[in-house]
Amino acid sequence: MTQQARAVETRAVIIRAAAAVFTAHGYGGTSMADICAAADLTKGALYFHFASKEALALAIVDAQHQRAIALGDELLHSDQPGLEVLLRLCFELAVQLREDPVSRAGIRLTLESSSLTAPVVTPYEEWIAACDLLLRRAIADGDVRADTDVEAAARFISPAFTGVQVVSDVLTGRADLRQRVIEMWSFVLPSLVVPERWAVLRTLPQEMADAWG
Amino acid sequence: MTQQARAVETRAVIIRAAAAVFTAHGYGGTSMADICAAADLTKGALYFHFASKEALALAIVDAQHQRAIALGDELLHSDQPGLEVLLRLCFELAVQLREDPVSRAGIRLTLESSSLTAPVVTPYEEWIAACDLLLRRAIADGDVRADTDVEAAARFISPAFTGVQVVSDVLTGRADLRQRVIEMWSFVLPSLVVPERWAVLRTLPQEMADAWG
Repeated sequence: MTQQARAVETRAVIIRAAAAVFTAHGYGGTSMADICAAADLTKGALYFHFASKEALALAIVDAQHQRAIALGDELLHSDQPGLEVLLRLCFELAVQLREDPVSRAGIRLTLESSSLTAPVVTPYEEWIAACDLLLRRAIADGDVRADTDVEAAARFISPAFTGVQVVSDVLTGRADLRQRVIEMWSFVLPSLVVPERWAVLRTLPQEMADAWG
Repeated sequence: MTQQARAVETRAVIIRAAAAVFTAHGYGGTSMADICAAADLTKGALYFHFASKEALALAIVDAQHQRAIALGDELLHSDQPGLEVLLRLCFELAVQLREDPVSRAGIRLTLESSSLTAPVVTPYEEWIAACDLLLRRAIADGDVRADTDVEAAARFISPAFTGVQVVSDVLTGRADLRQRVIEMWSFVLPSLVVPERWAVLRTLPQEMADAWG
């Protein structure tokens, strides 16, 4: 292995180890020494890659956000109906949060980020913007009512998903998240969907969950 | 002042000071020394009242939950319509979170509580139970559809409010929370309200916000 390849690998090892420790103990409850022990590295090696605990936490937040954005980007630029894409994103994100340790840690650190020098604002704003875009596409598709207050809907749907996954994490370790996201959509869709499309779209949450959740 | 009255007052001083420090720096970023400094007390005096940082954090979580429950209890046992009470609770809780420093700290510590020995589960479960009860009352009132999946609705509405207030805190320090709660209800009510009651109840979020937000 070249020196650079080794460096990339060590960085990945650190991120995985740190993700596990942050998920178990939170930002405040984690020290760089804990992460050294979990990654089986010396303090020197750890600090060579990350100058501080905060730098490492932000790298994990960024890694989670990149993974989520990678999900989103492909879908946002597909030609699938906007409403389908919006629901599919929620279910795929739920799977990612349930199953990917770095994503779990990233979300937790984002929630705790007011402990960092500056709170992490970008992911929230980007998800609201993605909802906004998909709702506009869904209006153009004829699935969502043209008189929908799209900004307000986007500013509700994205935080509602945040709350649903946070509470599911606290109460069941996200074991019930898929079912909670189905229910979330069953209570939100009636306010959005064009009446003539209701008969077709009312089963969309269950269909998307079956395919992607 | 008697010794006991002084002890009660000191405890209240500590809780107010600790709430400010936890809100600014999070659980992990706060030390007992920081709290001593903020409360202008010696370490001995602080530890006389609270054996550990965790005990103090849990006292604040409990104080916030008691304040919220105090709001809820009176309303839950009033004879006002269930749906009005449910919305009013959301707006009053929003005001409490926006304006009461101990409540702000309590919510933050609840969110960060996976850093504590055991995550704080009770407030989430009690809010879901309160939603459940009020939705059943609203069905009896003839405001909410009888075929509503009440458990699912309660398990969505309470987490949705959690997410709305968390994101409002991150993005605006809760300055926009009142408007976000109005919008939340505008997107949830259509799935709940009996069609014949819609003309009357569609303006309920704005009315409750004007009266209590």
